[in-house]
Amino acid sequence: MSWKTSSVTVCALLLGSALSHGALAGPPAKQSPVVIAEQGSFAVGGNVLQSPGVFSPNVFISTAGGTLHGDHAYVQFQIPPNARNLPLVMWHGGGQMAKTWESTPDGREGFQTIFLRRGFAVYILDQPRRGRAGQTTVGTTITPITIDQSLFIIFRLGIWPNFFPGIQFPHTSAVATLPVEEPLNQYFRQITPNTGPADPADGTNSANETNAVAALFDKIGPGVLITHSASGILGWQTAIKNAKIKAIVAYEPTVFVYPQNEPAPPPGFAPAVPVPASDFDKLTKIPIQIVFGDNIPNAPTPYPGLNLWVNAIPAAQAFAATVNAHGGDAEVVRLPDKGLHGNTHFPFSDLNNVAVADLLSEYLKEKGLDKRGNGNN
Amino acid sequence: MSWKTSSVTVCALLLGSALSHGALAGPPAKQSPVVIAEQGSFAVGGNVLQSPGVFSPNVFISTAGGTLHGDHAYVQFQIPPNARNLPLVMWHGGGQMAKTWESTPDGREGFQTIFLRRGFAVYILDQPRRGRAGQTTVGTTITPITIDQSLFIIFRLGIWPNFFPGIQFPHTSAVATLPVEEPLNQYFRQITPNTGPADPADGTNSANETNAVAALFDKIGPGVLITHSASGILGWQTAIKNAKIKAIVAYEPTVFVYPQNEPAPPPGFAPAVPVPASDFDKLTKIPIQIVFGDNIPNAPTPYPGLNLWVNAIPAAQAFAATVNAHGGDAEVVRLPDKGLHGNTHFPFSDLNNVAVADLLSEYLKEKGLDKRGNGNN
Repeated sequence: MSWKTSSVTVCALLLGSALSHGALAGPPAKQSPVVIAEQGSFAVGGNVLQSPGVFSPNVFISTAGGTLHGDHAYVQFQIPPNARNLPLVMWHGGGQMAKTWESTPDGREGFQTIFLRRGFAVYILDQPRRGRAGQTTVGTTITPITIDQSLFIIFRLGIWPNFFPGIQFPHTSAVATLPVEEPLNQYFRQITPNTGPADPADGTNSANETNAVAALFDKIGPGVLITHSASGILGWQTAIKNAKIKAIVAYEPTVFVYPQNEPAPPPGFAPAVPVPASDFDKLTKIPIQIVFGDNIPNAPTPYPGLNLWVNAIPAAQAFAATVNAHGGDAEVVRLPDKGLHGNTHFPFSDLNNVAVADLLSEYLKEKGLDKRGNGNN
Repeated sequence: MSWKTSSVTVCALLLGSALSHGALAGPPAKQSPVVIAEQGSFAVGGNVLQSPGVFSPNVFISTAGGTLHGDHAYVQFQIPPNARNLPLVMWHGGGQMAKTWESTPDGREGFQTIFLRRGFAVYILDQPRRGRAGQTTVGTTITPITIDQSLFIIFRLGIWPNFFPGIQFPHTSAVATLPVEEPLNQYFRQITPNTGPADPADGTNSANETNAVAALFDKIGPGVLITHSASGILGWQTAIKNAKIKAIVAYEPTVFVYPQNEPAPPPGFAPAVPVPASDFDKLTKIPIQIVFGDNIPNAPTPYPGLNLWVNAIPAAQAFAATVNAHGGDAEVVRLPDKGLHGNTHFPFSDLNNVAVADLLSEYLKEKGLDKRGNGNN
């Protein structure tokens, strides 16, 4: 491992192990302080809606001739002293926001702070029309829908109200009750609605999202993109737009791309998206790692929410095979094959997330993506 | 001043001064690193929407018997080593979110990082149904409305497209053009819509907001509440709910409360809200400072957006007088009276925000709110 195996890291690993049987975590272990050279936030990308007419300052609210600036991404960053050369950009999934990468549902450190400690500049973002990037040039209607329990299944915590045995999510009983325990309460409150029309699940019309993140890499320079779930497809599309994306690590991506002059591969959550061969080739120039958690069925079960996942790994494997057939460097990792069991759809915030982070650190080191200065670590 | 007047602080003061004539800021000055003992985020407060019926895991999306967890506040915190006893809780205004307290529109440090550097634990929040607290139990329709220019006036940057002379907002020309310069672009993109029904401007039905922030103080213990604009009224109401709020500093609050057995005071943006005398008395137990910026007219102008402010300071003064008549400790500060000129509706992110922060530090010291341990600084 490329960072110093400090007592802090060892403690965290032990803690993760001690908690890996579904026990409720106690107060987060005290860690050593984090040092930050610079932190802040900004908007990037976006559109401007402009109304016709002439603005009048003599009217209380004059929409005529007025503008609305929306459809940007909102980005928070923290940069440690002597940061590694390539920052990590972390992009949430569907119905989520950058909270994904912050504190875990039981209050431990998420990937944002873990990788800051490991010397990376970390950028977390809310994609356009989500969370703090809420300002939108196109309106929508938000309708509350009571799907916490359905998401419990889709996100593979278990078959509601039963947790999967050995699940890496904090709970005290094998059966969830209402009101839910605090970690599950926090988890459900991470969900946030779109404030404008949603991007299609297949990523075919996600210009706001991919343009904003491409603009982010133009602003910050070369870096590594970390995606999750629904941002998986957007990540492939953004890397095609911007060569400053030097690698992609995708946690549980659900949709893929393929060269349009070749046969369509098997679908993930939705059919793969055809792209020009010259675009697909751009994905063969960067290392790509795809990571899946546990409890993914190989064949249909009585639970449609769980069955969403039946096609995911074969689709990912087909994508990786196509990338590699074109001279690329893609791999699909199943965490159980690495000795990590019980991971949900959110491995980076699961109870064993330090071990999951260790795998990411190892990958970044193996691919030479964690260097400082002229190449020293 | 109670914090060490380091070279960093002096540099920042000089920088603020050098930029105080409306010049576009260059790259932010490099500061010394920030040390953080702990950081993270969580949801607090909120409601649960539950649908009737029985949940079925055999249906893909079963809303029957399902829940939605919404109407919470979303909170980010950073705690420095050896923090002062009382954390600062910073609450944004209308149409805004916690971005208010982060990087300024031109990328300098906002109050979040400034006061972290000064040894305070800092909590910034998105109120229920705003920003990252988007999940809502009651739906709404979001309709984009082109009011950037109207807000330019209401927020007292100038009379669009003309900046006020000497305004503490970064710009290169006296006249704004479209597309706007980057600081104004960032400023407009700080706006974010409500994802559920808005609280009334007079705060008469804001239980979600005040309950969530009251719950936050129950979670973190005694602290100082900093409000801005529309959260001003909510701050008075929350302090009535929770005695753990040990002081309030309100930037440009717009609506006030008064004892219901006394004559109604002059209105602010809206009529003052009557509260039981025993509730009003709770506001006499804590120090209250109310701060206003510059360019507030004393009498109506041709600009309705600017005229909103005509009543604000008299209303604040009447509120402070009532608090003090009941034995309290409230004051109204006009920044020009302190030698700070050109401040907008957002003094904490204006070009001279370090000087504005210095006034806050002085107030906290004067009132004994900045102590560490048993009272040493």
